[in-house]
Amino acid sequence: MRRVLLLVEYDGTGFAGLQHQRPGLRTVQGTLEEALARLGGVPKAVAAGRTDRGVHALRMPFHADLPEAIPLGRLPWALNRYLPEDVKVVEAREAPPGFHARKDAKSRTYLYRILVREAPVVLERHRALWVRPPLDLEAMRAALPLLEGTHDFSGFAVREERDPLRTLFYAGMEKRGEEVRLFFKGQSFLRGQVRGMVGALVALGRGRLSPEAFRGILKGGRSPAWAPPEGLYFLEAEY
Amino acid sequence: MRRVLLLVEYDGTGFAGLQHQRPGLRTVQGTLEEALARLGGVPKAVAAGRTDRGVHALRMPFHADLPEAIPLGRLPWALNRYLPEDVKVVEAREAPPGFHARKDAKSRTYLYRILVREAPVVLERHRALWVRPPLDLEAMRAALPLLEGTHDFSGFAVREERDPLRTLFYAGMEKRGEEVRLFFKGQSFLRGQVRGMVGALVALGRGRLSPEAFRGILKGGRSPAWAPPEGLYFLEAEY
Repeated sequence: MRRVLLLVEYDGTGFAGLQHQRPGLRTVQGTLEEALARLGGVPKAVAAGRTDRGVHALRMPFHADLPEAIPLGRLPWALNRYLPEDVKVVEAREAPPGFHARKDAKSRTYLYRILVREAPVVLERHRALWVRPPLDLEAMRAALPLLEGTHDFSGFAVREERDPLRTLFYAGMEKRGEEVRLFFKGQSFLRGQVRGMVGALVALGRGRLSPEAFRGILKGGRSPAWAPPEGLYFLEAEY
Repeated sequence: MRRVLLLVEYDGTGFAGLQHQRPGLRTVQGTLEEALARLGGVPKAVAAGRTDRGVHALRMPFHADLPEAIPLGRLPWALNRYLPEDVKVVEAREAPPGFHARKDAKSRTYLYRILVREAPVVLERHRALWVRPPLDLEAMRAALPLLEGTHDFSGFAVREERDPLRTLFYAGMEKRGEEVRLFFKGQSFLRGQVRGMVGALVALGRGRLSPEAFRGILKGGRSPAWAPPEGLYFLEAEY
């Protein structure tokens, strides 16, 4: 067996999330592990991050152990024969024997897509959040630097028993036509943190949250809203 | 009753095309006409163009007759309550009494999206054509002006008994990252013509069709391929 790093693209719409849950639920991990088994590999795929139901990924890293007989360059093709159309391996890389996709990740980057328009969104309905104008993008942009650095992010996250301190390296915004893209790069994230940050930013942009209240979320407050999963994408991890 | 122009966005994936066909087939027209009836309008919607199964639209114009009691600004909202998530009215405009969405259109514009990459396409699988590199974009770009003007386009179209002369005002290409966008603006198009032109252009870009053979399609030849529907979008019509 040889340890490999697989970069996987998936459409989260038809999955009950990335990780194994109750038997019978369709997950990205379970689907990938079935393909690994059919190729003679160990049926265990470990991801760099965890994404909820409906969240997408462009290059989610997984580590897995596969027979050395299959050339690395053929691996994506060989696995993709056994994978359904909503999850595919886009690249395979050799990894050192003890490599761990989650523990060894130095950073993770997420994207959140928002479409600001009067008309409902049809073609992008499972790919972005629809927000009616007005949305004060300058107020949102001004709040982004407040999120950067090391903070207690538990006010943006699902409540759980973990160290609430996380380091966000970068929070950025791009605007292209009616689309607003928010980028978040951090060492790691609490569960629900990106959706909690986007929910609070959108509330700020709609004038339903003051800049003071936004700052307060980092000091014991609680985000007023969690953005829905369909606009969220795991972009990549660095090692 | 008052005649209105409705601009409609739809995801063609779940429709058997735009126009009425055999009973029991789900069409964009049939779905829109049901919503018109529920709002007390005449259950007849006439589109500017015809799109096949799997083809999308961003602003497809339809004319229809609706009760004057409903304010124009409320019409999209009122109709969208009765429309499913894959087809929505994005704008409603007042139209003169005899206005006809198909006969009065001065131009129609289509977009075709191609993703050029090694890895299979997951998130955009119902929204674009996937082509593996290499694709000679300069050869394709050089062929675009040959299509402009008035020609017999029947070599690019589905065979049918119609005047084969059509006028193409513009054929253009934009490249953004791994995505190539082809734009075609014409007075009107033969059935299958855009997909036949894109099929021939892609064959040219892959070196499977010579520039001479491409030119020959306009002189009694036949396109070697029709591009699949999922990359095609009706963008807009002008009146």
